[in-house]
Amino acid sequence: MTLKMTLAELEAFVAEAFEQVQGDFTVLALTEDTIEVRLNVTHKHLRPGGTVSGPTMFSLADVTAYYMTLARIGAEALTVTTNCSIDFMRKPVAGVDLIAKARLLKLGRQLSVTDVLLYSDGSDLPVARATLTYSIPPVPRS
Amino acid sequence: MTLKMTLAELEAFVAEAFEQVQGDFTVLALTEDTIEVRLNVTHKHLRPGGTVSGPTMFSLADVTAYYMTLARIGAEALTVTTNCSIDFMRKPVAGVDLIAKARLLKLGRQLSVTDVLLYSDGSDLPVARATLTYSIPPVPRS
Amino acid sequence: MTLKMTLAELEAFVAEAFEQVQGDFTVLALTEDTIEVRLNVTHKHLRPGGTVSGPTMFSLADVTAYYMTLARIGAEALTVTTNCSIDFMRKPVAGVDLIAKARLLKLGRQLSVTDVLLYSDGSDLPVARATLTYSIPPVPRS
Amino acid sequence: MTLKMTLAELEAFVAEAFEQVQGDFTVLALTEDTIEVRLNVTHKHLRPGGTVSGPTMFSLADVTAYYMTLARIGAEALTVTTNCSIDFMRKPVAGVDLIAKARLLKLGRQLSVTDVLLYSDGSDLPVARATLTYSIPPVPRS
Repeated sequence: MTLKMTLAELEAFVAEAFEQVQGDFTVLALTEDTIEVRLNVTHKHLRPGGTVSGPTMFSLADVTAYYMTLARIGAEALTVTTNCSIDFMRKPVAGVDLIAKARLLKLGRQLSVTDVLLYSDGSDLPVARATLTYSIPPVPRS
Repeated sequence: MTLKMTLAELEAFVAEAFEQVQGDFTVLALTEDTIEVRLNVTHKHLRPGGTVSGPTMFSLADVTAYYMTLARIGAEALTVTTNCSIDFMRKPVAGVDLIAKARLLKLGRQLSVTDVLLYSDGSDLPVARATLTYSIPPVPRS
Repeated sequence: MTLKMTLAELEAFVAEAFEQVQGDFTVLALTEDTIEVRLNVTHKHLRPGGTVSGPTMFSLADVTAYYMTLARIGAEALTVTTNCSIDFMRKPVAGVDLIAKARLLKLGRQLSVTDVLLYSDGSDLPVARATLTYSIPPVPRS
Repeated sequence: MTLKMTLAELEAFVAEAFEQVQGDFTVLALTEDTIEVRLNVTHKHLRPGGTVSGPTMFSLADVTAYYMTLARIGAEALTVTTNCSIDFMRKPVAGVDLIAKARLLKLGRQLSVTDVLLYSDGSDLPVARATLTYSIPPVPRS
């Protein structure tokens, strides 16, 4: 149960692999089974009225579970989301960053399962929750 | 069980309400309980390798269920997604539009439930499936 | 894309492996990617008021997806459910059998994904929908 | 944010409303937004091999979220599950009770959302997780 990537290695890997979302996400904290990620909200993430859109919240939950899984298995770009259930519970506060707080519930040989709660920065009431399953590619035999 | 909005009214409403996604989606067909929507894929929807990203697929499923619900209840911008479960099953074909084919399973006073299958244009094997619940605002008393 | 078990082989396997539910389920039809299963409703499946309980509906959806997967991969008792999302949409008709109609959406090496709709026998409106993921054990190397 | 039913009132209500499951569940602890429920495992809950079955785990998660919701809104038998997503992550320990630990994430006028983790008694690794949405009947106007 040890991390295979540091927070800095994680950010360097993602910046290279996903240049399109560069600058959108910042990893705030990382332990063996928890992670915290900030979505740096800009105009492109907003719906009319100034609140963060559903697809943006999905995106934050997805990235957070991906980071958590990578931190444990190492830089495996082939790791893919197979399932997500997400509940939208409250309207995010307008113009405020979102914080994802996640917990790795399972890391098997084939699958990881991560629970994520999303908060408007500064608030205690979650705006959304999600659970994501990632499929982990089989280890190649040497 | 009749539609409250035509396909043209639906597109006009969405174009006004969500100018940020204008041009992304085209409604191809609409009946009382089915709808077909095309995602006009451009560079911003893609992941490295040229395939459509997960958040983009979520976004297409979400918009499709929203259109289906609006077509039945009328232009209610306050209708919001409360839950989505989504399974990613195959890699989309690179550089090809996605087609969402949806069926309204329930339209109650408080909730609608819509099933959506996503296909790469020209393929019979779904790349993803999703079910979305929308919360419908109470009818104001006159 | 061929079946590895006939309808009769499927029923014989399940009767032996799961004697506790013997008599509860009848496979009505089976093709390469669809299956229909009847729940023979008895007192133990009912809630107060005479309608089928939620756990019973879950159970029917789960068994149906299991049968569909087994029919394609062969008798693998180690195949296990990893995820289910289920929406309860209408109250089942009191004292009436439930019919599950399912479609296999994906059969990969590690996972199967099956969509299930549940109906009160004789009705066209689904009482529930579910999607189930089964994890398939790796083929042992000979 | 206060409880409308005590732990004792909750158990009395459920014993009367659901005599079929009487004795199966014990509420261990209750606060304004958390609850702990024990499943008293007996032969009928088991699969071959002695582990608790999937439908039994679903049932425990469902009852736990129902208790949590009732404790806050009062004895409303009409409150019904509308959605559940559940992930089965580990095999339960054979012949051991299951403990559900739940947190109420949202209590709105129309919906409640509850997160549940299931453990084999004495273990720290969750065997399953679930999120359940309950639909709350509208308050009748006096």
